[in-house]
Amino acid sequence: MQKVTRKSPNEKIIYFGDTARLPYGGKSAETILRYSIENTLLLLEKDIKMLVIACNTAASYSAERLKGYFNIPIVDVVEAGVAQVVATSTTKRIGILGTKGTIGSGIYQSKIAEELPGALITAIACPLFTPLVEEGFIHHEIAKHVVCEYLAPLKKENIDTVLLGCTHYPLLSHLIAAELGPNVYIIDSATACAEKVNSLLIEKKLDAKESQNPSHKFYVSDDPERFGKLACTFLGTSVSSVEKLTWHL
Amino acid sequence: MQKVTRKSPNEKIIYFGDTARLPYGGKSAETILRYSIENTLLLLEKDIKMLVIACNTAASYSAERLKGYFNIPIVDVVEAGVAQVVATSTTKRIGILGTKGTIGSGIYQSKIAEELPGALITAIACPLFTPLVEEGFIHHEIAKHVVCEYLAPLKKENIDTVLLGCTHYPLLSHLIAAELGPNVYIIDSATACAEKVNSLLIEKKLDAKESQNPSHKFYVSDDPERFGKLACTFLGTSVSSVEKLTWHL
Repeated sequence: MQKVTRKSPNEKIIYFGDTARLPYGGKSAETILRYSIENTLLLLEKDIKMLVIACNTAASYSAERLKGYFNIPIVDVVEAGVAQVVATSTTKRIGILGTKGTIGSGIYQSKIAEELPGALITAIACPLFTPLVEEGFIHHEIAKHVVCEYLAPLKKENIDTVLLGCTHYPLLSHLIAAELGPNVYIIDSATACAEKVNSLLIEKKLDAKESQNPSHKFYVSDDPERFGKLACTFLGTSVSSVEKLTWHL
Repeated sequence: MQKVTRKSPNEKIIYFGDTARLPYGGKSAETILRYSIENTLLLLEKDIKMLVIACNTAASYSAERLKGYFNIPIVDVVEAGVAQVVATSTTKRIGILGTKGTIGSGIYQSKIAEELPGALITAIACPLFTPLVEEGFIHHEIAKHVVCEYLAPLKKENIDTVLLGCTHYPLLSHLIAAELGPNVYIIDSATACAEKVNSLLIEKKLDAKESQNPSHKFYVSDDPERFGKLACTFLGTSVSSVEKLTWHL
């Protein structure tokens, strides 16, 4: 979200965080797809002009279906991340870090392999990264230890590019960079996504032409107060009002 | 569940795990109460004779209300754990470990203080314990490190009893025992709960008199296959068939 508002500062963001059912990382394909459809319907009621699937796990399992079902331009963070990896890697030796769901879906692996035939892809599920970030252990010795543990198989592969395939992981990028060394490009799928949003808005002539000093709107399915407090860390912005929004299904 | 079947081997267990919405630990009181009511209604449809709220977070926020609303004997893991702590501690210097939700609810603290006036209670939220157990890092160096970090404030308090107030924590009890030393009693709320279930069944004349070689029934709201694989670790039993069960609300 921070990346999108920086790249497209005139646009008003309607944000929905499914805090009542998170995390998605360990849930089944079927359930993630159902949740993603329900969340899309909530946002459509808010009259959005474009949908951004900013959660890698949700994008992994639902992007293709949502693009088929709904009559609205959809940008998904996985597609954007893949494009960036393909543009960056020269040795075709690539690492992908994500939740169990994202890695298990195989979506990054198959999409990169499609665009970069012969690529050697090492994909690692890092289920402790998200709770570490949520616990605020970003600079803690324990986080270093966990990063070292998960990245050990990656260090043997002589990669030139690693993709951080989860919204929380960029908060650990200092540790990941220290572990992998200066010769590995770190790609944050959120940055790639923000660029894709901007170019698609222009292509579809949907971009807000003049600065409207947009006031963003935040919805969550549980505990708006807690979300307001965490927003600074996760969204890089302070949040004046957060409302609770739930499904009528 | 393992503790209940051991203590009451003739009883048939109808188990429901809300895998589509877990974990409850970081969610709001309102949402946890709503989920608990929905889950109770699912189990009532299965014709249960007694309800056990085996999740500490759910029990913390919903036990009183569920006992008020529903016409069925209800045992909650918190009440049972409190009784055991009260019976065990002689110095009244007590530690409680739980999720953010359980510790934040203050339920253990206030119930113990009620029964043991003057008790010195140190309650610590350990949000990384559950993901560590789910990741299988039970004997890992990282788990030792995390246990050491969370228990540091407790070690200064000279406690004689610590309560493990979350279903996952007993799987780390070897590390907790090593950290706190041999003079601290470790109370597992699940064991306390199983004893309460047994005595209440007898008191209400609801106990199954003869061995019926009961076949337990397992339901989850997401991913029955994955649950089947994890059941051995968490429930101490292998599970032949797990079915998906969801709400029609």
